[in-house]
Amino acid sequence: MTAQLTGRTTVTSLGRGRELLDPALRRAVARLDEHTRLVASYHLGWCTRDGEPVSANPGKALRPSLVMLAAEAVGGTAEDALAGAVAVELVHNFSLVHDDLMDRDTERRHRETVWSVWGEATAVLVGDAMLSLAHEVLDESPSPRAARSSRVLARATRELIRGQVLDMSFETRTRVTLAEGLEMVAGKTGALIAASAELGALLGGAGPRTVAALRDYGAQVGVAFQVVDDLLGIWGWPERTGKPVFSDLRSRKRTLPVVWAVEHGSTAGRELAAWLATAPPPGGDPEPSLRAAAGLVERAGGRAWAVQEARDRVRRALRALDGAELDPVHRTELAELAEFVVERDL
Amino acid sequence: MTAQLTGRTTVTSLGRGRELLDPALRRAVARLDEHTRLVASYHLGWCTRDGEPVSANPGKALRPSLVMLAAEAVGGTAEDALAGAVAVELVHNFSLVHDDLMDRDTERRHRETVWSVWGEATAVLVGDAMLSLAHEVLDESPSPRAARSSRVLARATRELIRGQVLDMSFETRTRVTLAEGLEMVAGKTGALIAASAELGALLGGAGPRTVAALRDYGAQVGVAFQVVDDLLGIWGWPERTGKPVFSDLRSRKRTLPVVWAVEHGSTAGRELAAWLATAPPPGGDPEPSLRAAAGLVERAGGRAWAVQEARDRVRRALRALDGAELDPVHRTELAELAEFVVERDL
Repeated sequence: MTAQLTGRTTVTSLGRGRELLDPALRRAVARLDEHTRLVASYHLGWCTRDGEPVSANPGKALRPSLVMLAAEAVGGTAEDALAGAVAVELVHNFSLVHDDLMDRDTERRHRETVWSVWGEATAVLVGDAMLSLAHEVLDESPSPRAARSSRVLARATRELIRGQVLDMSFETRTRVTLAEGLEMVAGKTGALIAASAELGALLGGAGPRTVAALRDYGAQVGVAFQVVDDLLGIWGWPERTGKPVFSDLRSRKRTLPVVWAVEHGSTAGRELAAWLATAPPPGGDPEPSLRAAAGLVERAGGRAWAVQEARDRVRRALRALDGAELDPVHRTELAELAEFVVERDL
Repeated sequence: MTAQLTGRTTVTSLGRGRELLDPALRRAVARLDEHTRLVASYHLGWCTRDGEPVSANPGKALRPSLVMLAAEAVGGTAEDALAGAVAVELVHNFSLVHDDLMDRDTERRHRETVWSVWGEATAVLVGDAMLSLAHEVLDESPSPRAARSSRVLARATRELIRGQVLDMSFETRTRVTLAEGLEMVAGKTGALIAASAELGALLGGAGPRTVAALRDYGAQVGVAFQVVDDLLGIWGWPERTGKPVFSDLRSRKRTLPVVWAVEHGSTAGRELAAWLATAPPPGGDPEPSLRAAAGLVERAGGRAWAVQEARDRVRRALRALDGAELDPVHRTELAELAEFVVERDL
């Protein structure tokens, strides 16, 4: 794929998004009570735990950028969809704060997580506040489509929770099918990215066919994004993702490459299944065992399948765009964004 | 007050509300994924933890009844406001599930709480799902005021969280003023009851002056309701409230009668402050110490103040109704509902 061009163009659209997004997101968060505002601002990378401003890495803002890009692509402006962009970023961050609490993760992007700094109750409340604020922002939008947008967001949140519940159930099961793994990912990651593209189209003024096409595009991009994340969770670069190598193997997580490898029952796959069923030995260096497990995923074909699956999802995303009425320049940007998601680190 | 008539009439309006509410609430909850649906249904008293249907005490449904009554009072129908009724009941229950988790309460209405049956992660997710579902239901309402309603609900949730945060901060402080205590209650309990009356008026088609008046009415009823709850938390009947006598004293909670007693610094108030600062002695029967503390609240005037405050709030609620355009029959029902909240157990 045209990695060079793709990278540059997409970074442009992502950056453009942030300039509009940040002030609007800060205005929204400013409504929260003092303590909740401090904690949310810390989580969003705007300040230290004591409220000292910092200029941390602001993250990709993939979801809000997608909202604004979709609005432009259907003939609206990024401003038309700004409330949607703020809302999806708030929902995304609500889910991160609650996820970190549920998973007892102590670090995210090289910073301590909310619950590990302020405790469980604060993490519960700050997540709740961001979810609710997302609806407040959308419902205040002057768009006659405000209620429809808020409904799209609520459905996506319901799907996201369905995905989380499924993911949790995997932890106590010995067998997970690929279909279940894909369903989980479609909920946990796909739903909000699908809603981002859908919201942009909706707030940008698109007709029903184009709204549906962009939703489908987003759903495919979302699954592609998660498959790449799963690859990075095994073989990725800590300095880029903030996750140590083999991190998902360390926690015996049933990510898609692992699920595929086990389901396709080669010798390596069976060895991997046996490894997954064994608790990590206490003490000692876990590295050799994790490296061996990663080797099993690879030999069983899990890595190659995942790379193919991600690329295939991007192809499906591009096909979905054929069903939408889009101006050609923005259509290219949407296509490049989809490709960037996959090519960023493969 | 006209206790006899008040009681009977209000029970009628509460009962009437449930008949419409229950099927609509069940339809909404049926959209959740299987596990989340089971847990939400258990929490709502519809089934056992294994999903066996039960006909438990369905609770007062004060908030949804208020939504529907307010809609009728402004000339609409209960059906016009049904989505609002479902939504406030979902938000109320989302907050209960998360509260029980944060407070580590193991029992609610004589049943085990969600987190104590299914664990913390499930309690987080089920609460999240109910909050989001509330917006989904409201935003699907055919009313042209759907977005405005969803916004009212989101603001109330923000105020509710503000109240929770304030309440949590009290636990680590030695001094809490009455103003702070009242602010906390206005958020934690008042905001959603105010929103219930406001949503009913809004969905029933009222003009801005009547909507604001009903919101004010609800805010006053909400504080009255909490003051009575605080009284019951010290002197109440376990068989009616599911709370043991002295329960709020047992946890050294800064409820309003306690805050008032300490702030008004009589000898008894100072003794109470000293008692609150002392950790309960391990082992032994705590009953005599709790009984003595309840006596101090009473001697310091905290009980009498609370009874007066609750009645005063009801008077203010009734005055707020003067600013609304209401038909006389439903106006009487709203007045009686306010009085019932206070007289139910004083």
